Amino acid sequence: MTFIHTDPLKSLLQTYNDLNSASITILDEIPSPLEFMRFVALNRPFAVRGGAADWKASREWGVKKLKEVMSGMRVNVAVTPKGNADSPARGPNGDLLFVKPHEEEQDFTTFLDFIITQEKNGRLPNQEIRYAQTQNDNLRNEYSPLYPSVPPTIPFSRIALAHSPEAINLWIGNSHSVTALHKDNYENIYVQILGQKHFVLMPPLAYPCVKERVLRSANYVRDGKGGLEIKEEEGRDVPFATWDPDVEEEGVGEEEREMRELVRPMRVTLEAGDMLYLPALWYHKVSQSCNEEGICCAVNYWHDMEFSGSFYPLCNLVRNLTLEKERGKIADKIAEQQKL
Amino acid sequence: MTFIHTDPLKSLLQTYNDLNSASITILDEIPSPLEFMRFVALNRPFAVRGGAADWKASREWGVKKLKEVMSGMRVNVAVTPKGNADSPARGPNGDLLFVKPHEEEQDFTTFLDFIITQEKNGRLPNQEIRYAQTQNDNLRNEYSPLYPSVPPTIPFSRIALAHSPEAINLWIGNSHSVTALHKDNYENIYVQILGQKHFVLMPPLAYPCVKERVLRSANYVRDGKGGLEIKEEEGRDVPFATWDPDVEEEGVGEEEREMRELVRPMRVTLEAGDMLYLPALWYHKVSQSCNEEGICCAVNYWHDMEFSGSFYPLCNLVRNLTLEKERGKIADKIAEQQKL
Repeated sequence: MTFIHTDPLKSLLQTYNDLNSASITILDEIPSPLEFMRFVALNRPFAVRGGAADWKASREWGVKKLKEVMSGMRVNVAVTPKGNADSPARGPNGDLLFVKPHEEEQDFTTFLDFIITQEKNGRLPNQEIRYAQTQNDNLRNEYSPLYPSVPPTIPFSRIALAHSPEAINLWIGNSHSVTALHKDNYENIYVQILGQKHFVLMPPLAYPCVKERVLRSANYVRDGKGGLEIKEEEGRDVPFATWDPDVEEEGVGEEEREMRELVRPMRVTLEAGDMLYLPALWYHKVSQSCNEEGICCAVNYWHDMEFSGSFYPLCNLVRNLTLEKERGKIADKIAEQQKL
Repeated sequence: MTFIHTDPLKSLLQTYNDLNSASITILDEIPSPLEFMRFVALNRPFAVRGGAADWKASREWGVKKLKEVMSGMRVNVAVTPKGNADSPARGPNGDLLFVKPHEEEQDFTTFLDFIITQEKNGRLPNQEIRYAQTQNDNLRNEYSPLYPSVPPTIPFSRIALAHSPEAINLWIGNSHSVTALHKDNYENIYVQILGQKHFVLMPPLAYPCVKERVLRSANYVRDGKGGLEIKEEEGRDVPFATWDPDVEEEGVGEEEREMRELVRPMRVTLEAGDMLYLPALWYHKVSQSCNEEGICCAVNYWHDMEFSGSFYPLCNLVRNLTLEKERGKIADKIAEQQKL
């Protein structure tokens, strides 16, 4: 008999845990469009081992090939001090900000040599981290010479969702880059080409645990002394998850601890040739390891998610309840202080 | 710009209304399994005009044929004073109870002649209402001689949901029977064979409006004087919706009225040969009209619903929040009375 929580949000997470596995479904073959649609209906992820192993990109890409195809081209590179692009970070006055990377165009070969050297020889003290990670359909634009090496769509998701991908993105970096916990409004097919990606996954219902905060937006900019500094963007606020599921926080209250114990982050490592279905609105934190050549490379296909039906409104309800609960706690604290 | 409600449940209904149509999707052809699965994923209903028009049952059934095939057989008949099987009704001491029909075996031809005569000649004062409505897979059992006239499964739902129907039910009655607002834990394919069915449909999110109450269970029993009386069953409580979307209630408070205005009951009439997908957990109230022979006949296929994923836990959350809110209102009322 499961203990029934009186807090509706705890009870929600408990029910979810009772009805769902804590580990990801592993398939050893590509699903049919209908099989895929069943996962979409459940908003549950799966990984297909070797699902993209026979792609031209999986068979042919490597440092030599990438340099050959992209020779002489300039690409957008995200530059950060710690591999933390699009992440919460402390600004000059100690406030937590949402900090975007410094972006600049670099010669592709120079960029690739930089990340490989850093990976193989080790990072120099305070050396910057570089990551090609523009999520703007870059494989069909900036990297179009590489595009013929991947299928133009993932047939099972195109057929199931009845539309072509909104964006196809290429990711090239080394093990020093980490993508902070966040969610996207997309159904995502993620394909590992070189190296490994390590995912921590949590369903949209984990919202009460991710400590979403409205952060002021900022950018890393070159400080002219070989380093990077944070510069705030005026008037732009971003709601963003501030919980890092890999860090043991100090001073976490009883309430928060209890709630966290009800979330069971799912972990999965994609090897080269593996494919992941990352359902819309799932929280994910992503770190990476390089192949023997010292790079990590992936491609992902974003499909617009479906906002009709009741799933999105229900996720919104969970968000509103969490915000209401947090406001209540703040009000209680103020009332207590006024009593003293 | 939509007004944002501060009550999370009102805000939920508002968001749902903003993102979904208030009327049912009408198809003019049977969907493919994948197309069907998209509706299941959205938990949204559709009707297919003429979707079952070429079924043997649609082509051949009528009073003569039914009597021929079922000649000499005895069937279970639900008997009620007002056509209200499985409905909330006032018991002898005025309490609202969940009252099940009196059930008895009758000769099929006698039963059919009774409902036809009542329909065609008009109901006599206080005359009982009869309805063949056992929802226990009766078409594959009690009515098995009629079963070959319908397909053994609905291919699109069997393939999409990857299992055969849990139950196939036959319904025969006249216009005096009404099925009270309720929901089922099944994906339901409902097919009209003779006459019409009038559905009032509301999504599971309408829970805060349906006034679910825990009712003591009771049965109609023959009183030995040609009438029916209510007899309570000891120790059986049933949570059941007590709102009738067709009745203008008096004395509804501001809060309740505001909530009700956010629910947009969907109405659809199935004609003979039409098919309806009634998604799991949708509230439905059903009334009926007869064909020129004076009967109404339908068949439905129940598929087990999927409890994994996040939809069921989220529906449960809406229920828990509603109960919490109602408990809060009761507590407020008691506190107020104690002050006086």
